[in-house]
Amino acid sequence: MQNTTSAIIITIGDELLIGQVIDTNSAWIARALNDIGIYVRKRIAVGDNKVAIQQAFDQSLSEAGIVLVTGGLGPTADDITKPLLCEYFESSLVTHQPTLDHIRHLFENVHKRPLTERNIQQAAVPACCTPLFNAMGTAPGMWFEKSSKILISLPGVPIEMQHLMTEQVIPRLREQCQHQFIEHRTLITHGIGESALADILVPFETQLPSSIKLAYLPNHGFVRLRLTQQSTEQPDVELIEKTFGQLKKIVADYLIWDRDEPLDQIIFGLLQTQNKTIATAESCSGGYIAHLLTRNPGISSVYKGSVIAYAYDVKTRSLGVPEQILQSYGAVSEETVHHMLLGILDEVQADVGIAVSGIMGPEGGTPDKPVGTVCIAAGDRHNPIIKTYRFRFNREKNIQLTALYALNLLRSFLTSSVS
Amino acid sequence: MQNTTSAIIITIGDELLIGQVIDTNSAWIARALNDIGIYVRKRIAVGDNKVAIQQAFDQSLSEAGIVLVTGGLGPTADDITKPLLCEYFESSLVTHQPTLDHIRHLFENVHKRPLTERNIQQAAVPACCTPLFNAMGTAPGMWFEKSSKILISLPGVPIEMQHLMTEQVIPRLREQCQHQFIEHRTLITHGIGESALADILVPFETQLPSSIKLAYLPNHGFVRLRLTQQSTEQPDVELIEKTFGQLKKIVADYLIWDRDEPLDQIIFGLLQTQNKTIATAESCSGGYIAHLLTRNPGISSVYKGSVIAYAYDVKTRSLGVPEQILQSYGAVSEETVHHMLLGILDEVQADVGIAVSGIMGPEGGTPDKPVGTVCIAAGDRHNPIIKTYRFRFNREKNIQLTALYALNLLRSFLTSSVS
Repeated sequence: MQNTTSAIIITIGDELLIGQVIDTNSAWIARALNDIGIYVRKRIAVGDNKVAIQQAFDQSLSEAGIVLVTGGLGPTADDITKPLLCEYFESSLVTHQPTLDHIRHLFENVHKRPLTERNIQQAAVPACCTPLFNAMGTAPGMWFEKSSKILISLPGVPIEMQHLMTEQVIPRLREQCQHQFIEHRTLITHGIGESALADILVPFETQLPSSIKLAYLPNHGFVRLRLTQQSTEQPDVELIEKTFGQLKKIVADYLIWDRDEPLDQIIFGLLQTQNKTIATAESCSGGYIAHLLTRNPGISSVYKGSVIAYAYDVKTRSLGVPEQILQSYGAVSEETVHHMLLGILDEVQADVGIAVSGIMGPEGGTPDKPVGTVCIAAGDRHNPIIKTYRFRFNREKNIQLTALYALNLLRSFLTSSVS
Repeated sequence: MQNTTSAIIITIGDELLIGQVIDTNSAWIARALNDIGIYVRKRIAVGDNKVAIQQAFDQSLSEAGIVLVTGGLGPTADDITKPLLCEYFESSLVTHQPTLDHIRHLFENVHKRPLTERNIQQAAVPACCTPLFNAMGTAPGMWFEKSSKILISLPGVPIEMQHLMTEQVIPRLREQCQHQFIEHRTLITHGIGESALADILVPFETQLPSSIKLAYLPNHGFVRLRLTQQSTEQPDVELIEKTFGQLKKIVADYLIWDRDEPLDQIIFGLLQTQNKTIATAESCSGGYIAHLLTRNPGISSVYKGSVIAYAYDVKTRSLGVPEQILQSYGAVSEETVHHMLLGILDEVQADVGIAVSGIMGPEGGTPDKPVGTVCIAAGDRHNPIIKTYRFRFNREKNIQLTALYALNLLRSFLTSSVS
């Protein structure tokens, strides 16, 4: 057992420093390490630059027991991580036969392209490391140990990194490292601001057990509250459960969910429990609500389909919104979304649904319906909830908030219709 | 003019270290700085921890002329950036009157909630900084200068950070700092692997002017090639243009686009030029293709609508796919997507469209149609391109790749039907 309870994540690539890609790997790795009780103390992103990478290795190995590196393992000249690791650990490159066999198989049977010297070089690893076989790609992971510190290098392709983490890195770390116990409990509130919530929670925060930390994660009207218990001994699950129970009681009026799940997943669960099917009729959200629902595995048991009615005539023809309603009230109106909801429930024969229409910007606003105005109907044929919102942001954010508020209205419908 | 041509970005928040949120701010800031010729040398993420934040400040200020910090400026106890900055720069807190007036206005007229002491404290800033007025929220930005170094603290809420960067930080940096000239040129290839591309490009890379760097950004069958020219003098635009022209010529057989634009934006442009309207009929992609198209401002001039036909009966009823086709060939077949395409073009009266049907996993695969099998039809009523793909990943990635390959098929249709 090594005393390596904290980790630093290093991501490598010029694309990270010029903002050409968003780094999703770090969050994924952080979550995976957290799940096995390894605390991440820092994340660093550096470019494809030898001096910068070496400096990041030095600093990180002096500050943490585990250093996880992704990126720079490709076959091209701008990928310099492997030769650099070889030099850093004063080793020399040797062929990893299982990787070479796998690369040969991939090129001969899957890609059906000739194998070149460059591909063969992908199978070379520093002699001093433990190679981690990568079934999802050509670049193996590498596990180095030195002076009771661990450095792990993984490819930057997310799917390959995730595969290597799950299959090889996590099991080894779990076995080899002394880890802490980290317990989280998160709940979601709605309808109260972060400051007001903090005021209510002053007595709670003052009496919080020293092993437990409270964090606020606000997101446009929704605030997540997270309790974290971190300890080197067995976790006091009873204590965090009791504290979480107190927290839930204090924020009961604003509590919408007591787990950290996205609203689409919450709704999927509610629909399964209530044995109901769902459909969406979307104008301004352009299919984003349907996308959020359908990213959930197994959703086909409750989700029937959607009509994205962007053009005026699609609203009348495919959703049966009466011409007269559109003319009297406009495409962005509570009357129109009500008819869109009735139309979609009829069209795909679903039990409940969401219908939205609005102006996402930057163009299309009018004095009485400015950019950000959105009408939402959510529920069944008989008693849907219908509301109008006014978001104040750019197109991307307005679309996200439209989906968030629409899903929340349906959650509200589904939870209140049960009780 | 200060010699502050390089920057380090620090993001603060425990949520980053436990992977509860993905850091999109860093990429946005990096892009914005790059656009004005400021090179980002590193990005660091640390938790809500005093020692870790101070250490990050010290290290960053010693390595770069500009340090950009986001996060930790909220009104709750876990937000420690402001008091820490006050201590770090040996200052004391004073009220920033324009911010206080703005907070008062927000609470009285927008949120319609009582103003508390906690909200008022949001208007306090260290006396030694230049406050940056935040019209989008309650936490002002702060601009510090010390020993010819600049440290800028911004709120972590993306929309507020972006607003402050655009309106205040970028104009000031442009005026105050000596910046470099950074020129990028990016093209997109398809149908050739990264290694094979690198082999073709050996002579090109060998003769590359020393001021220009080539980078490979592979993404599942698509490889972006980026040329970057970085110099302290006026950029040699002619040289990078000439070099980019050579690169385009070498990869001509695989070149699909000569700008770094997402495929949905490329298609939007092509549709506008060709004066054509578009629709989508989606099964397995669940609205994600419609979402990608509709995130583009002004898309309503070409996009008519979509049917997301998840359930079997929606495919027949809303898209008019004949029962017999579904029964003979199955829902995931080239025949079915062909009929889905004809159905949607008819239903919403569009000129061209995309139809997809597949199995995204993790369940639903069969021996002859395993998870990842996707059929795509793209084009018009007369000569659509119809293809079957087999992706090998998880549900999320399979959905993304389905959209990517579907949009690329339509791009291929739109560009070949012109020439």
